[in-house]
Amino acid sequence: MTKFLKDIQNLKDTRGIAIQKVGVKDVEIPLIIQRKNDSDQIVSAKARMSVSLPQNYKGTHMSRFMEVLDEWRAKNLLGVDIKGILKDVQQKLNAQSAHVRFNFKYFVKKEAPISKAQSVMGYDCSFEGNLQKDEYNFLLGVKVPVTTLCPCSKEISNYSAHNQRALIKIIINYDENQHIWLEDLIKLAESCGSCELYPILKREDEKYVTEKAYDNPKFVEDVIRDVILKLKENKIIKSFEVECEAFESIHNHSAWAYQKETI
Amino acid sequence: MTKFLKDIQNLKDTRGIAIQKVGVKDVEIPLIIQRKNDSDQIVSAKARMSVSLPQNYKGTHMSRFMEVLDEWRAKNLLGVDIKGILKDVQQKLNAQSAHVRFNFKYFVKKEAPISKAQSVMGYDCSFEGNLQKDEYNFLLGVKVPVTTLCPCSKEISNYSAHNQRALIKIIINYDENQHIWLEDLIKLAESCGSCELYPILKREDEKYVTEKAYDNPKFVEDVIRDVILKLKENKIIKSFEVECEAFESIHNHSAWAYQKETI
Amino acid sequence: MTKFLKDIQNLKDTRGIAIQKVGVKDVEIPLIIQRKNDSDQIVSAKARMSVSLPQNYKGTHMSRFMEVLDEWRAKNLLGVDIKGILKDVQQKLNAQSAHVRFNFKYFVKKEAPISKAQSVMGYDCSFEGNLQKDEYNFLLGVKVPVTTLCPCSKEISNYSAHNQRALIKIIINYDENQHIWLEDLIKLAESCGSCELYPILKREDEKYVTEKAYDNPKFVEDVIRDVILKLKENKIIKSFEVECEAFESIHNHSAWAYQKETI
Amino acid sequence: MTKFLKDIQNLKDTRGIAIQKVGVKDVEIPLIIQRKNDSDQIVSAKARMSVSLPQNYKGTHMSRFMEVLDEWRAKNLLGVDIKGILKDVQQKLNAQSAHVRFNFKYFVKKEAPISKAQSVMGYDCSFEGNLQKDEYNFLLGVKVPVTTLCPCSKEISNYSAHNQRALIKIIINYDENQHIWLEDLIKLAESCGSCELYPILKREDEKYVTEKAYDNPKFVEDVIRDVILKLKENKIIKSFEVECEAFESIHNHSAWAYQKETI
Repeated sequence: MTKFLKDIQNLKDTRGIAIQKVGVKDVEIPLIIQRKNDSDQIVSAKARMSVSLPQNYKGTHMSRFMEVLDEWRAKNLLGVDIKGILKDVQQKLNAQSAHVRFNFKYFVKKEAPISKAQSVMGYDCSFEGNLQKDEYNFLLGVKVPVTTLCPCSKEISNYSAHNQRALIKIIINYDENQHIWLEDLIKLAESCGSCELYPILKREDEKYVTEKAYDNPKFVEDVIRDVILKLKENKIIKSFEVECEAFESIHNHSAWAYQKETI
Repeated sequence: MTKFLKDIQNLKDTRGIAIQKVGVKDVEIPLIIQRKNDSDQIVSAKARMSVSLPQNYKGTHMSRFMEVLDEWRAKNLLGVDIKGILKDVQQKLNAQSAHVRFNFKYFVKKEAPISKAQSVMGYDCSFEGNLQKDEYNFLLGVKVPVTTLCPCSKEISNYSAHNQRALIKIIINYDENQHIWLEDLIKLAESCGSCELYPILKREDEKYVTEKAYDNPKFVEDVIRDVILKLKENKIIKSFEVECEAFESIHNHSAWAYQKETI
Repeated sequence: MTKFLKDIQNLKDTRGIAIQKVGVKDVEIPLIIQRKNDSDQIVSAKARMSVSLPQNYKGTHMSRFMEVLDEWRAKNLLGVDIKGILKDVQQKLNAQSAHVRFNFKYFVKKEAPISKAQSVMGYDCSFEGNLQKDEYNFLLGVKVPVTTLCPCSKEISNYSAHNQRALIKIIINYDENQHIWLEDLIKLAESCGSCELYPILKREDEKYVTEKAYDNPKFVEDVIRDVILKLKENKIIKSFEVECEAFESIHNHSAWAYQKETI
Repeated sequence: MTKFLKDIQNLKDTRGIAIQKVGVKDVEIPLIIQRKNDSDQIVSAKARMSVSLPQNYKGTHMSRFMEVLDEWRAKNLLGVDIKGILKDVQQKLNAQSAHVRFNFKYFVKKEAPISKAQSVMGYDCSFEGNLQKDEYNFLLGVKVPVTTLCPCSKEISNYSAHNQRALIKIIINYDENQHIWLEDLIKLAESCGSCELYPILKREDEKYVTEKAYDNPKFVEDVIRDVILKLKENKIIKSFEVECEAFESIHNHSAWAYQKETI
């Protein structure tokens, strides 16, 4: 019963291959998100956390990732200090580089455009941090649904135009000493569709969004260009990846546009 | 090395609990589908196959399901004779009841309404068979995307109307001695939206579908009622389950309607 | 501009078809869950909410579902009083029957069996309520991952046995005047696998779970029978639906067992 | 009725932003795959196809992607000549660069190790082609499930070891004038787990795979290193991306390793 439990992971490996990322994936854990102009929000996250592994070690210690995640959760800092948790992982696993990504649903209050009826809307968001020795890099991600109304359909039809839900995905990397709120990145995306979506719409609101989308037709090409222009206006953003996918109401496939740039 | 390999599944079980369904799930296997007015189509299916297990047996023999599936695949009859495969399973596993469900993507040729440009469109379909002793029951299922255009949005707005992709799901049970083609059930569903979807639409077609949807506004309630009326017209259908879900272009949630009836 | 906004939904419908369920689906909204021996937990839920629609009405008022959901969220009762929200919906939509289902990830603290290292583990859970006039019915659901180790593989092999993650799904209906905690239903399920899962396992724990699973081999048939026996011991449970799916480590498909019973 | 249908996509755009990729996504279409030592296989694919769009054009012509896909499908070459279809798209859309990705389930015959019982097993595969002016690049991808048995669990436990299904993902780029079969890349991956998976296993086979996995324990770190070594042995491979994810039987999360290299 008191068998000595050998540390297999610490054994030498002779294959001569250093591994870039080794860790845990699909870890479900609650996260604390600081909200703009509001109290913190607790969200359900999926985490992926890894370190680099030198060529001479057989394996990493997977349970330590879970211990670090839980320590930071317990002290109410998981999601708040991404760089801090990476330094902790780097040290506890004695690694050159550490990486973490959290994907979570984030709720933001929204009010209808005319009736002002209020509710919350959920957005898929992500935090991603990379620490290579002392160099830190952070990526902020949002997926924002909007309406797109087809300019071609509007132009060629005697009346109406096909429209649909579309999804704008944005991932940005920005100056570490600055801050960009999820709320602001979501708003930026919402301003680039034909119209934004709302959780509650009364009749007067439905009239408004219907007419607004028709007055503001956009291809996925238009959406992505407008997003890019707005991202470039923000001088602290250093690079971005943008996608727009429209779930066409007249097809069973999507229209899609994609851009990745370092500014 | 020549150890006697005991049949654990055949052991007695004393818990006194007969199990309704025991088997395999998410088995990936090619299926042969007979097409209306065309040669057969080979599709990629996911299969779930099970039998009932009497209370005095510890387990079923899982490998036999795979053997039966493969035998029928090898003789080019998997998907063709659902009752036959269930009889085979029933006998090989010495079971009172047997059940199988195949889910697969089925391709149907479609031509654009004006330009007549042709391509194929994929539909999620299912075959499900139940054999209780000698009593056989078959369920045919289709998921058919259509356009829905909101009657309320059309009425209250000075111009345009929000529209979106919606999904109609139909599962029917019908007289065993009759046949209903997937193609016909798909067409029935497509005739109940504001407009149907197409793989290729040229400009003249896009004008047509835009105007047709506007001329034919439908709530999910309208869609489901029209599907139900058409199903009831077909005298060989004995029961049905129908759903319509519209992926609202103005919300991030769906409008949804559901009905299950035995005629 | 001050156009009268006609209530299209209130129009007469002449097709003669009453619809069983009409409403909203995939609504994302935070929920409050009362925990056993702990403070409340806020979770991210997906909601489906519907009412019955009499044959003479064209449509239901979709925005009212969202208003009711948001009102109950704002007063911190969404998830707490399912019957209350259904009565509210029934009244505001003037419906005979109302239905709601919430699916959410629920976190429970777990400690490792030997080291007692603590963290949280997430479980997919559901609340479902049906109100038919005055008759109320509640369904509680959990999906609980466990380890299963194959009795056949253990018996026939000279050493070791294949094992894998398996998922136990339980949905129960019970006496409305009683209460069953999510924590207790989860524990019931976890006690029926070959071993339970843990978020953190140190070396001494890993030895323990490895040996425990080997000492406790179970087919999906064994798991489901043990779950059924335990559910039947609880006299307030009136009906149940149980599934066990093992993601076989030696196959690319699952072993599966299913039972639905009214006691 | 004979309205002139203006070509909106051809309008000038003045925002000054060229778009890297614009096209269609989630197009469902049958593909023809050439098999090693066997006749062709028809599979169900999801396609994503795009071109680059110069800054002075408002939009691309989405229907032309569908026309090209369908033409190549109709002449039984979709999936066979990726470079050919990209040249066609490049020309018809007058684009500098063109890109296509097909994801599909591919079936390969497998026989059990001892009983030689035969069936088919499905693998998620992908073809991806990039054409930048005249420069062509092809990526071949496979996702291959295997068994992994934990070396640490084996070492520290008095008997048995936890094992589970794991998924190896490989994407390779190789010399355009050479060919690598899907079958060979799948076999390479399968040789790197603790044991490979099979569709049918009789009792003697189950004994074999149980003992083989125990005799051959591997962390995800071991699996990925062995895959990398074998990829590097193949001199026509120019770069690769490899992942191994083990769906731990003792946790509700995965162990994960990742490597991306240009050789």
